[in-house]
Amino acid sequence: MTTVHRVFNFAAGPAVMPLPVLEQIQRDLLALPGVGMSILEISHRSKTFESILEQTEADIRTLADIPSNYHVLFLQGGASLQFSMVPMNLLEEGQAADYIDTGSWADKAIKEARKVGQVNVVASTKSESYNRIPAAPEISLTPGAAYVHMTSNNTIEGTQWKTLPATGDVPLVSDTSSDMFSRPIDMAKHALIYAGAQKNMGPAGLTVVIVRDDLVAKAKARAFTLPTMLNYAVYAENDSLYNTPPVFAVYATGLVMKWLLALGGLPAIAVSNERKAAKLYAEIDRTGFYRGTAAKFSRSLMNVTFRLPSDELETMFLRESTAAGLDGLKGHRAVGGMRASIYNAFPEAGVDALVDFMRDFERKRG
Amino acid sequence: MTTVHRVFNFAAGPAVMPLPVLEQIQRDLLALPGVGMSILEISHRSKTFESILEQTEADIRTLADIPSNYHVLFLQGGASLQFSMVPMNLLEEGQAADYIDTGSWADKAIKEARKVGQVNVVASTKSESYNRIPAAPEISLTPGAAYVHMTSNNTIEGTQWKTLPATGDVPLVSDTSSDMFSRPIDMAKHALIYAGAQKNMGPAGLTVVIVRDDLVAKAKARAFTLPTMLNYAVYAENDSLYNTPPVFAVYATGLVMKWLLALGGLPAIAVSNERKAAKLYAEIDRTGFYRGTAAKFSRSLMNVTFRLPSDELETMFLRESTAAGLDGLKGHRAVGGMRASIYNAFPEAGVDALVDFMRDFERKRG
Repeated sequence: MTTVHRVFNFAAGPAVMPLPVLEQIQRDLLALPGVGMSILEISHRSKTFESILEQTEADIRTLADIPSNYHVLFLQGGASLQFSMVPMNLLEEGQAADYIDTGSWADKAIKEARKVGQVNVVASTKSESYNRIPAAPEISLTPGAAYVHMTSNNTIEGTQWKTLPATGDVPLVSDTSSDMFSRPIDMAKHALIYAGAQKNMGPAGLTVVIVRDDLVAKAKARAFTLPTMLNYAVYAENDSLYNTPPVFAVYATGLVMKWLLALGGLPAIAVSNERKAAKLYAEIDRTGFYRGTAAKFSRSLMNVTFRLPSDELETMFLRESTAAGLDGLKGHRAVGGMRASIYNAFPEAGVDALVDFMRDFERKRG
Repeated sequence: MTTVHRVFNFAAGPAVMPLPVLEQIQRDLLALPGVGMSILEISHRSKTFESILEQTEADIRTLADIPSNYHVLFLQGGASLQFSMVPMNLLEEGQAADYIDTGSWADKAIKEARKVGQVNVVASTKSESYNRIPAAPEISLTPGAAYVHMTSNNTIEGTQWKTLPATGDVPLVSDTSSDMFSRPIDMAKHALIYAGAQKNMGPAGLTVVIVRDDLVAKAKARAFTLPTMLNYAVYAENDSLYNTPPVFAVYATGLVMKWLLALGGLPAIAVSNERKAAKLYAEIDRTGFYRGTAAKFSRSLMNVTFRLPSDELETMFLRESTAAGLDGLKGHRAVGGMRASIYNAFPEAGVDALVDFMRDFERKRG
């Protein structure tokens, strides 16, 4: 294998994958060992793939300590399709769903849910440019709501929930697209979580949904009206094999799960993620030249957002950092500035390189 | 690169991919040339991916001679999701949709459409075990129907349309999941075609939809009620980049399109597909030991279905063919028997090997 040049990839997703996983995919690309065909060619009904799927589910259950009354489902369509599937499966006539509006993606989830039924926005930090997660007293839940929807990490604004909202008996549904499996999760406090794989888990093209069985039963009752492909119960009853799943993305995600387990699981990756983020935030706070955009108590460990003193300096920073092999630091077009996405697979060496670059840039231009 | 052992893969999909495409994917897996990151890691908003997506669309347009008033869309969810999206986008209140029932997949499309609106089954060969495509006089279309839905190739039953039904001004919608880009297609006679990529085009996880702009306009009018991710207009207006597309599957499909173009495009691959199928059907018809299950005038060039004189012989045939490196010949559980799927990328050497095996098997057991 010839040596290849790889840059540090700070993209918000699709994002960097673990190099050992890429190497294994590459090694076996023409034919899986003992199978005689590529993972890109095997039938989803083959023993080989059934075993890959089962192992991936088992590894997810081990990693995140998923209780047995939860289903682990593999879907397509990303979080954006979940914005519709959640209310289509869970919001009944005469009920309302509570949404906590903490960012651009939460807002999209709200817009889609409103097409399905009644939505109450029970807290919002929109008027503060979504720079923080609301405090508990600011959230007034609707009695008897079908569910409460939250966004655990706000990729665009760089904020993240530190303590879950207390929803009592009302099912908590969380869009964990940008922090699933980046830290331990108390699944029993959630009724359903979902995430596109392309940030912490694998390549784009796979959506993971973990859902409690009483919610699956609710979905099942709608089998006669709900499109089959949008019904959680269909995935649960068919082990995500009702139709052809995204075989390769499941396989690659399975390899990433094994990589996570070998590292020590979610407690270990959380320590690594905290250390990486702490280094970056320390540099942001060091002199005041850089300015973090998220309130300190809401800062995301995944997406570190910051500004420079002027638009000119930001343009210069972006140009020079890209040239230095630090790619993808441009903030989302909706908020501007910089964003360093440092998911599970992002190497600490890349964080160190960015800190060095920031220090150097400030010395030259500050 | 070490030599790998590859079997002949007759699976019905996901199915065999062109070896040069697999080799290119393998070579560039750690980092695309000049990009410094893997195709599994690049942002869908990057110039690199935008150019991959544009090139894939352009190559599809060239390959299939797609008129400029048609959109080429890249989605997820497979044909099964299209079973719902087609009526959700195109079937208006007070209208009916006509469905031609030629197999198990057509039947599933009908069931999903019935959840959305009024469906007329305007022809069916169900009572004949779907062993043929209905003749033109058997199809009585509904005046003013929203569209007519057909299944161009019936993967399970091994039948294929040779002449399109005449639908006049009524839009013709075709599920071409198992024969898209296996032969030239007269797009102007269709209003919409769709296919999962995993048979003739690429790996599982990508759905290609080609749709005329007046149907997109119909979809657009439903933006306030239809889930965003289920609206064709959203894909058309955002160049399939409303949310994160299945990046890798688009890339791999793009490479297959280039492979097809280099071979001489759809006329050339059609000649190859006809030659491969003719060899197999000739062997099936040679003595009467094997029995083709599809009526001769409806025989599929993609899925060649046949039976042996007894269940015992079929079991033996399967065991011995698998051992001989001819994999995936078991027919669909719904119909039994054998099925040799010989899509675009299936090598003629594999057909020759199967013919030899069949002849040998008949000599020994016939």
